[in-house]
Amino acid sequence: MPETSTDPSADTIEAIRTPALVVESAVLDANLAAMDAMLPGDRLRPHVKAFKTTSLAQRLSQDGHHGFCCATPREVEGLVAAGLGADILLANESLDVARLGALADDAQITVAVDSDTTLDAAIAGGIRRVLVDVEVGLPRCGCAVEDAGRLADRARTAGLEVRGVMGYEGHLMMVMDPTEKSEKVGSSMELLVQASGDVGGDIVSGGGTGTCTTNTWCTEIQAGSYTMLDTDYAKLDLPFEIAINVLATVISVNRKGWIVADAGIKSMAMDHGNPTWEHGDVFFLSDEHITLAPTDPAAWSVGDTIRLQPAHIDPTISKHQHLWLVDGERVADRWDVDLRHW
Amino acid sequence: MPETSTDPSADTIEAIRTPALVVESAVLDANLAAMDAMLPGDRLRPHVKAFKTTSLAQRLSQDGHHGFCCATPREVEGLVAAGLGADILLANESLDVARLGALADDAQITVAVDSDTTLDAAIAGGIRRVLVDVEVGLPRCGCAVEDAGRLADRARTAGLEVRGVMGYEGHLMMVMDPTEKSEKVGSSMELLVQASGDVGGDIVSGGGTGTCTTNTWCTEIQAGSYTMLDTDYAKLDLPFEIAINVLATVISVNRKGWIVADAGIKSMAMDHGNPTWEHGDVFFLSDEHITLAPTDPAAWSVGDTIRLQPAHIDPTISKHQHLWLVDGERVADRWDVDLRHW
Repeated sequence: MPETSTDPSADTIEAIRTPALVVESAVLDANLAAMDAMLPGDRLRPHVKAFKTTSLAQRLSQDGHHGFCCATPREVEGLVAAGLGADILLANESLDVARLGALADDAQITVAVDSDTTLDAAIAGGIRRVLVDVEVGLPRCGCAVEDAGRLADRARTAGLEVRGVMGYEGHLMMVMDPTEKSEKVGSSMELLVQASGDVGGDIVSGGGTGTCTTNTWCTEIQAGSYTMLDTDYAKLDLPFEIAINVLATVISVNRKGWIVADAGIKSMAMDHGNPTWEHGDVFFLSDEHITLAPTDPAAWSVGDTIRLQPAHIDPTISKHQHLWLVDGERVADRWDVDLRHW
Repeated sequence: MPETSTDPSADTIEAIRTPALVVESAVLDANLAAMDAMLPGDRLRPHVKAFKTTSLAQRLSQDGHHGFCCATPREVEGLVAAGLGADILLANESLDVARLGALADDAQITVAVDSDTTLDAAIAGGIRRVLVDVEVGLPRCGCAVEDAGRLADRARTAGLEVRGVMGYEGHLMMVMDPTEKSEKVGSSMELLVQASGDVGGDIVSGGGTGTCTTNTWCTEIQAGSYTMLDTDYAKLDLPFEIAINVLATVISVNRKGWIVADAGIKSMAMDHGNPTWEHGDVFFLSDEHITLAPTDPAAWSVGDTIRLQPAHIDPTISKHQHLWLVDGERVADRWDVDLRHW
């Protein structure tokens, strides 16, 4: 049974099988326009890990963002297959890169490295371009600043092009105060600029949705969640609005004051907490259910459609096969979330 | 690009692309045997929502469990397509049941109802058998005990067979003390037995992995997570062991004492907290990464394979395309998680 066999097309929101992800086209358009005004063309390298959807990447490419950022080899493969391989960066370490080396004639693929072992895998895998990933304060990937130049020299000696450096200040995304944020991002990015001096190349890549208005040190910003946002990023003072909702159907109404809808943990990421519902409180979620305490319990009936705002967009989208683009009650398009898995 | 195109077969654990779910065949076998000894044949109605895998349902059917429990219409459709439609219960409310009514000649499908609206949907959708879902203390689905008989009468008047009642004591799964647990499950199940008297039919269905050793009131137990378990259920005194791990590859080693592997929130459910790692502490997870603090940092190198025990099995499995059955270092089988989505 193919995975899409039970998810038929729909012309209206009412006809969409739930749970499902609906995206307000007008809000999406406004978010993309706001980013284009701030970071036009190659100043933005959209991060497809956020949405894992070739159709949205196509749209961003048409808007002038020709370079893309990926977190997984699979995302890279999908973009290349869709003809979006002009300048793809795997902004993550991987030893499974020979599958990307095999695409070297079809696309310009750059792979991040932060160790001899990841560099060796790139060389052995037929990768032609690398970028040195530098740790800038987030306890995750990235080499020490003082090791970046050595890795770049080794890569060049092996015949690879070294395009520059990247460093992700992910620990600073949710700093709220603008002055504090600017100071901390500055301190972090000074490490990256220092590494850039040792490594060479044109690219200084970093940032994300949470620092896209702050990070003026990078030549390009890696952001993707801004396209549709979530309740966590909405706490920041950013020029974007929440475009994405989880659509659910009320399947049970209890006279004690709660209602139950058919969207649970399997359709929404919980690592940033519960989703938000504008008509009452979220009681709790289980695998396939959400129990809600409406402000006005008498207003709700079995069969009603509700919308929930997810707290974390990226891992919510990766649970779904489709994004339903809507314009009022009308379905404008259905995009496949086709770059999921690994 | 089909969803499975980038996930090739593998003969050994080392060859499995990560992140991935690996299942120890011997532990799975022992878990199934322990349950069979306790609840043989139709005393167990395995809940496929836990594993969403037709191949495992086939195995359970061969072991004598011919009735299945589903949480979504899609799971029902998949079981029917696989020839496992002898006695399927959709143990959940849905208005999207006409798709199951269309399968009425191919399978014996029973649908839970807890309201006039869900009963009307069942009647209109060509459903031939229902079971009345009763609220027994968990704030989720289920009608009031005193409304169950009325719904059953209405269903019979409309020509449907009423097979009995169900009620899920999900709020009691994690009660640790056996005496307290038995008392609370008893109080909850007395409500269900009372409803059963009003409704009629042969079935009193309820329970789950967390109460399968306690619930002696039901004619059949709805359990599924026991097959592979997780660190949450492992806290209980149950005759099952953890059979499932998330397999990941170390992609970065930081001299400050942490290591990073390629399994994050998109490959593991976080609603029950972090996974467990036997060689150190889990620092934090992000979308595609886990940062770990090993007890012995010098012992780890880029390229090493690690295993993580997930905290919540059901929503972890639903993030993956496959379960890799392993026997030591050898891959014994690859099962498709083919009943995902809705």
